[in-house]
Amino acid sequence: MTRLDLFIGRMVSQRACIDRAIALTQGMTEPVFELGLGNGRTFDHIRANVHDRPLYVFERTVASHPSSTPSDEQLVLGDIFETLPALLERTGKKASFIHADLGGHNPAKNDEFARTISPLIEGALAPGGIMVASDAMYFDGLTELPLPEGAFVDRAFIYQKPA
Amino acid sequence: MTRLDLFIGRMVSQRACIDRAIALTQGMTEPVFELGLGNGRTFDHIRANVHDRPLYVFERTVASHPSSTPSDEQLVLGDIFETLPALLERTGKKASFIHADLGGHNPAKNDEFARTISPLIEGALAPGGIMVASDAMYFDGLTELPLPEGAFVDRAFIYQKPA
Ligand SMILES: C[S@@+](CC[C@H](N)C(=O)[O-])C[C@H]1O[C@@H](n2cnc3c(N)ncnc32)[C@H](O)[C@@H]1O
Ligand code: NI
Ligand code: NI
Repeated sequence: MTRLDLFIGRMVSQRACIDRAIALTQGMTEPVFELGLGNGRTFDHIRANVHDRPLYVFERTVASHPSSTPSDEQLVLGDIFETLPALLERTGKKASFIHADLGGHNPAKNDEFARTISPLIEGALAPGGIMVASDAMYFDGLTELPLPEGAFVDRAFIYQKPA
Repeated sequence: MTRLDLFIGRMVSQRACIDRAIALTQGMTEPVFELGLGNGRTFDHIRANVHDRPLYVFERTVASHPSSTPSDEQLVLGDIFETLPALLERTGKKASFIHADLGGHNPAKNDEFARTISPLIEGALAPGGIMVASDAMYFDGLTELPLPEGAFVDRAFIYQKPA
């Protein structure tokens, strides 16, 4: 596997899981959370496919492509560990779908981070809601779902909170 | 088409065309040229699949991922318009395969650049050699080949110099 192969595998798997998550949460009215904006490609994909719910994007430093930069209403600027609890408090709403692609290039650090952030994400998800991540997460009460067609094992992960 | 769709389409098409180009030039002894290193993903893919020929990477400013940074022997640092003619002169060898991914985010500029660089690339290719590009090129004597399976129209282009 080259870096090109790995990268394509991750992007294709993210897209397949995001599409599945949106389909599975169709009809839910709770907001969608994008954790990590980065270049803005997955944000652009989610924005184009979710029309019936508010979308919030959590990012420390905005460095996205100009054509996929969130609006002021969508952007939640700062450290997720502070901004996510604050938003839940302010809106009183949990999420129908959370997508998280927060990792960097160090697998050990990514795993450590996934461990630390898992309880926060689990608590932010509404019953029946879906969570998609680029790293394996450490949840107590969520069910890992089978990957949708087109996604590759270990390149993306999809979880659901029991309804 | 979201930015995620477009990006995946381009990477998948690049990979399919690179793989085809390597297969079609199997047995040729002339070097391979990677024009534009960027993150180094396509460099890593070419490096992993070409073992029988020298590989040269042309880049103005190295900003690749540490795990896919060319060796000093592979790297040709500077503006391609100067360094490519200089390398041809120094080695006396044209290329069996040239991959070019030099564009940025402005389609009009990319097209202008493709027009400007096409004669240089055409002159650097050995008879029977293959050229793969992310933008449509402007060649006089090369034949555009049908895209390999898995590649998408307009996301990559593949050309051959008559033997
Ligand atoms: C889109 S990136 C290449 C991405 C690469 N294919 C990958 O997979 O990561 C394009 C690169 O071409 C380089 N480049 C563009 N014009 C150039 C020129 N005239 N001379 C040298 N390098 C150039 C840029 O510096 C940039 O790093
Ligand atoms: Ni990395
Ligand atoms: Ni762009």
